[in-house]
Amino acid sequence: MVNWMEIDQQVKMWIMEAGSSIRESFQHSLSIQTKSNPNDLVTNIDKETERFFISNIRKTYPGHFILGEEGQGDELASLEGIVWIIDPIDGTMNFIHQQRHFAISIGIYENGIGRLGYIYDVAHDELYYAERGNGAYMNGVRLPALTEVPVEKALIAINATWLVKNRYFDEKKLVSLASRVRGTRSYGSAALELAYVASGRLEGYLTMRLSPWDFAAGKVLVEEVGGVVTNLWGQELDMMKTNSVFAGAPGFHKKILTDFLLKK
Amino acid sequence: MVNWMEIDQQVKMWIMEAGSSIRESFQHSLSIQTKSNPNDLVTNIDKETERFFISNIRKTYPGHFILGEEGQGDELASLEGIVWIIDPIDGTMNFIHQQRHFAISIGIYENGIGRLGYIYDVAHDELYYAERGNGAYMNGVRLPALTEVPVEKALIAINATWLVKNRYFDEKKLVSLASRVRGTRSYGSAALELAYVASGRLEGYLTMRLSPWDFAAGKVLVEEVGGVVTNLWGQELDMMKTNSVFAGAPGFHKKILTDFLLKK
Repeated sequence: MVNWMEIDQQVKMWIMEAGSSIRESFQHSLSIQTKSNPNDLVTNIDKETERFFISNIRKTYPGHFILGEEGQGDELASLEGIVWIIDPIDGTMNFIHQQRHFAISIGIYENGIGRLGYIYDVAHDELYYAERGNGAYMNGVRLPALTEVPVEKALIAINATWLVKNRYFDEKKLVSLASRVRGTRSYGSAALELAYVASGRLEGYLTMRLSPWDFAAGKVLVEEVGGVVTNLWGQELDMMKTNSVFAGAPGFHKKILTDFLLKK
Repeated sequence: MVNWMEIDQQVKMWIMEAGSSIRESFQHSLSIQTKSNPNDLVTNIDKETERFFISNIRKTYPGHFILGEEGQGDELASLEGIVWIIDPIDGTMNFIHQQRHFAISIGIYENGIGRLGYIYDVAHDELYYAERGNGAYMNGVRLPALTEVPVEKALIAINATWLVKNRYFDEKKLVSLASRVRGTRSYGSAALELAYVASGRLEGYLTMRLSPWDFAAGKVLVEEVGGVVTNLWGQELDMMKTNSVFAGAPGFHKKILTDFLLKK
């Protein structure tokens, strides 16, 4: 019998500890190295933070598995058992450029089902979290269930890049959507953008290529307030692969799929 | 002889007072009315905040003029004398949808020259301010002069809408720019986006239609750290009209103009 409440208390303590140490590290200069993709920057802090979580998880929960961005986790072929899906710093480019608008993202899944989700906006000290079936919260305040919003009143997050011809999705559909909603935003951190959907600050978030650690926590949060998270074709996300992601308030999600994304 | 230092102290006190009262108002529900443009929402708080500034300015500085969004200021034909250019809540849509990512923006101009600029991120309690010739600051910490950043390493703010065919600017040039930089963002508040340029969190910010109260403070801030603010054709902004706006770090601004915006 898994004691989710105990795990929840434990994760929160680790997140707070990691967050403080990241904020302290801003005092020091960042030593940056570039991965294969120039858009994909990695810092020492990123790796140290992942190391911190992984060593704590292994010590405290030796039977659990870990899936993480920085390659220090396990090589998994499935999500059987309890799997921690971790992005120590989601929004690395923001982290380096801005020292804000980045998040620690942790989703804990059991046999493929998201049980716990945590997104911590480190710079602003805001923790969004949810336990499946037991509500979603930001800093202790319960997040209300998402409500219906008409397309013309919706604010969505979508990066400008996706409105330009690209190999992933018919940009004309996205252009049409972007010109119908009240406004578009782009914050550069999938985890935060999902947390904004969960907290009703955005009606939707659309993007083309996210890894499981980018959306694992956000999916738990958004679903716990009644939102829907699929790929851009309305299909369930594959937790072992890169996916396009569309998260939205319930009726809004359906309407956007029918009227824009799946429209012939 | 104008005592700018005294005005500076006074403005800061008013901004802090207005900010607290806005944060308090979040407790109450917002009574919203829609202006002609559905994207252009006005709240009671917006009007009250403008009223607060205007009545204080008129009482304390009866010889000064006021230019403001909500129509309670003066009808001015020129910027002669000392003119306060005020946006009580820049980023109204964010204000309503998110209760964050909006700002109080105040620029104080003397015979058309920006002397003082204030941008207050109310939700995060961050005040960006500059006195022409005496430095720019965020919450008391001096902002360093902007430095050269190559295009491929730049983060710029541009709304997705401008990458789609529009009546204001050749979208192909902007698409080309957006695909060359490291990343694009969009926060939905011109004042904050200009404050981010001034504080080095963004290398540039481009948009099509801003009123003087949207950029008056930001212009002072960006210029004080060595940045450049023009329209998208590289021309000086007209402080009495709607303008396109391109703010950027010094070398970056020039390069973008030459290689993208003015390119035949």
